[in-house]
Amino acid sequence: MDVLKAISERSSYRGSYKDTPVSKEDLRAIMEAGLAAPSGCNTQTTSLIAVNDPDLLAHIRQLTQSPMLETAPAVICVLTQRLIAYRDRSFYVQDYAAAIENMLLAAVGLGYQSCWIEGQITDRDAIGRKIADLLDVPDEYEMVCILPVGIAADSVKKAKKKPFSQRAWFNGFKTV
Amino acid sequence: MDVLKAISERSSYRGSYKDTPVSKEDLRAIMEAGLAAPSGCNTQTTSLIAVNDPDLLAHIRQLTQSPMLETAPAVICVLTQRLIAYRDRSFYVQDYAAAIENMLLAAVGLGYQSCWIEGQITDRDAIGRKIADLLDVPDEYEMVCILPVGIAADSVKKAKKKPFSQRAWFNGFKTV
Repeated sequence: MDVLKAISERSSYRGSYKDTPVSKEDLRAIMEAGLAAPSGCNTQTTSLIAVNDPDLLAHIRQLTQSPMLETAPAVICVLTQRLIAYRDRSFYVQDYAAAIENMLLAAVGLGYQSCWIEGQITDRDAIGRKIADLLDVPDEYEMVCILPVGIAADSVKKAKKKPFSQRAWFNGFKTV
Repeated sequence: MDVLKAISERSSYRGSYKDTPVSKEDLRAIMEAGLAAPSGCNTQTTSLIAVNDPDLLAHIRQLTQSPMLETAPAVICVLTQRLIAYRDRSFYVQDYAAAIENMLLAAVGLGYQSCWIEGQITDRDAIGRKIADLLDVPDEYEMVCILPVGIAADSVKKAKKKPFSQRAWFNGFKTV
C-alpha cells in the first residue's frame, strides 16, 4: 500500500477483530517497522514484545479490561528505557511515539487494524508494570503502550478532525 | 512508494540539498500527512507552518546556524499546544512525534529527504521561540521541531542499529 494512502487510512480502531491469526512474519514485519523509526541521537530507547500466545493474551485482557483488546488475536507491547541522548536530555517519548506510528502504518499496509492504547497502561494503577511482570520484563524497562493487531470485524471509522486551514499554514502563522 | 519501503528507507539526512524547489502541493501533502497522525483523545495538539519564502528561510538559517538547514529549499516548523487529553494528562509530545514521523515518511514517499531537528530548537537558548516570533506564532504555541525538506544532493546513509534480537521478542522478554 502506498505510504500516503496508509497514512490517510490509518485510524484508531475500537471495534472487534476477526479470529484470523496474525502470522509471526507479519508481527515481525510490524515490529521491524517500529524499530526502523528514528530516535534522539540514535539511542534506540524503544523495545517491543509481540504476544500471540493465547494464555498470555487472556492474562493481558484480564489485567487491562480493555474492550479494544478483547478480541485481538495478537498485541504488541511497547517498552522504553529513559536513556540520555545528550547532556540531561532524553527523547524517549518522541522515540517510542515515532516507533508506534510506524507500526500503526505498517499494520494498515499489511491489512490489519490497531489502536494506540497508552493512557490506560500508564495511569496510576500501573497496569503496564503488571503486564511487564507477566512478560518477565526487567525493571529498567517501562511498558508504555499496547497495540492490538488483527483484521477488523466491524466497520473502520475515522476520527473527525479540524480543517487543514486551522492547523497548517505557509510562511507564517495565520489567525485561526 | 510502498509504506514498508518508505519506513525502511527513511533516514536522518544531514547532507546538502539540490536547489530544486519543493512544490506547494508537495509541502501541503506532507503537512496533511502530519495532521493525519493520531493524537491523545483526538486533541489535535500539533500545528504546522511550511516555509519556502527565501527571506524567511535565510532568517531561520541565521537563527539556527544548523548545517542541516543550510541548503534546504523548504522547511516545516512543528508547533504544539500542551492541551489536556483527560484529567491531568497531556500527550502533546506523543502527538507531535507521530505527526513528525508521518511527515518524514511522506517526504520519502514523494522523493525528498528530511531530518528531525528538535534538540537544537528546544535547548536552553530557545531558538524555537525566536523562529516562532519571526513567523508571528502566538505565545500559546511552542515550536518544537524543524524539518528541512528537499531533494538530496549527497548520498543518503542510514543509522546503524542494534539487531532485531536485541530489541524485539515474542511472548516474553528475552535476555539481551
